[in-house]
Amino acid sequence: MHQGAHSHEDAQHVEGHFESSAVVRDIVIGLSDGLTVPFALAAGLSGAVASSHIVVLAGLAEIAAGSIAMGLGGYLAARGDAEHYISERHREEREIIERTQDEEEEIYQIFEQYSVDRASAAPVLAALKQNPVEWVNFMMRFELGLEQPAANRAHRSALTIATSYIAGGMIPLLPYMLVNDNLTALKLSVVITLIALAVFGALKGKLVGTGWFRSALQTTLIGGAAAAAAYFLARFLSYYHS
Amino acid sequence: MHQGAHSHEDAQHVEGHFESSAVVRDIVIGLSDGLTVPFALAAGLSGAVASSHIVVLAGLAEIAAGSIAMGLGGYLAARGDAEHYISERHREEREIIERTQDEEEEIYQIFEQYSVDRASAAPVLAALKQNPVEWVNFMMRFELGLEQPAANRAHRSALTIATSYIAGGMIPLLPYMLVNDNLTALKLSVVITLIALAVFGALKGKLVGTGWFRSALQTTLIGGAAAAAAYFLARFLSYYHS
Repeated sequence: MHQGAHSHEDAQHVEGHFESSAVVRDIVIGLSDGLTVPFALAAGLSGAVASSHIVVLAGLAEIAAGSIAMGLGGYLAARGDAEHYISERHREEREIIERTQDEEEEIYQIFEQYSVDRASAAPVLAALKQNPVEWVNFMMRFELGLEQPAANRAHRSALTIATSYIAGGMIPLLPYMLVNDNLTALKLSVVITLIALAVFGALKGKLVGTGWFRSALQTTLIGGAAAAAAYFLARFLSYYHS
Repeated sequence: MHQGAHSHEDAQHVEGHFESSAVVRDIVIGLSDGLTVPFALAAGLSGAVASSHIVVLAGLAEIAAGSIAMGLGGYLAARGDAEHYISERHREEREIIERTQDEEEEIYQIFEQYSVDRASAAPVLAALKQNPVEWVNFMMRFELGLEQPAANRAHRSALTIATSYIAGGMIPLLPYMLVNDNLTALKLSVVITLIALAVFGALKGKLVGTGWFRSALQTTLIGGAAAAAAYFLARFLSYYHS
């Protein structure tokens, strides 16, 4: 490794991108939906039903459904990625033996996309052919664009997403659990959830590298828009119905 | 392009992977959550409240909240990806001019990861240096692992996800709209939604390339598990409360 300040930054950047980002992404997925959807659902119902009991019931049912749907969904997606990687890898391993010429041609094609002629690519091909494992690694990354998924990714992904969803979802519901009056609970829920969304958005912006202020504005806007839409829809429907 | 049957298959595969997969993924995201969460919420509430009106109200509020949260979320995620790509690209464009040596070194490092020595990599570097645009393209893809996002990706992504969520979410709610008795509506909803989940899962399995049967089983399982959890949680809470 050379020591240029820029390249160190880059190495960190790439490392961060490929390693911790999967967990952070799962937390972000779970928290942003968990803070938003149960919040909006509770806000919507609070304007349409008399009892805060039903708001809490619907909110908890939503959290149960949402955390399972997102958690299991994340589990199966991660497992699917891992299986896809393995099966493609086995195929490449077979093919560099059984269809050596085709695979060599594919390397030339990869470089041709970048206007690198066959003569310039030939030494790379020769080097890769001396080391079949690296040849397969190279094809996985540069032909198919596939990264090797971390081991146990699926379980961790499922748990992280589901837990984050539950944690996020409980925040907007708390006021309805503690306060009997729906309108008071709604106001409290709006205040604490918008604060939570702003804090979450700011942290997310810091982590992902977009500005913290803009990110905070975005998460608050999404949560507010979803809650307002659910609220007015439920108000309209219950007015129309009664 | 050479004509080997395998490589044709591969080309299709890679093309499919990079082009249509974004839209398909958005439809899958929207439909799978839309079919699952409103279904589970309605099932949960149907066991706990007397009126199917409240089930429909909560379901529609959830669909409004969920489609906005997911659609806006998709929009911002896609726009974030696009901006990230552009800013990294500008950085690379500056750096191949201002820090030419560092960037050359980075190319050697990319190849070193695959045990390709400097002498073998040198002709590729020489070819890339003759064409700065391709050099930047190469660094974006092989150093940073970034693909150029399609134009207008963000708007299309938001609309696709939101529409799919609404379409998916209306299916489980229909019986509650048409039938007054909650138990009858629940049974109908379970039957048509599990069928819809199975058909959706089978199609998804066909498209993505995992087996259709297994994929159908998975989506049905997720939807069923989420609905069962929401149902029993709501039953338990309303029993405990009354």
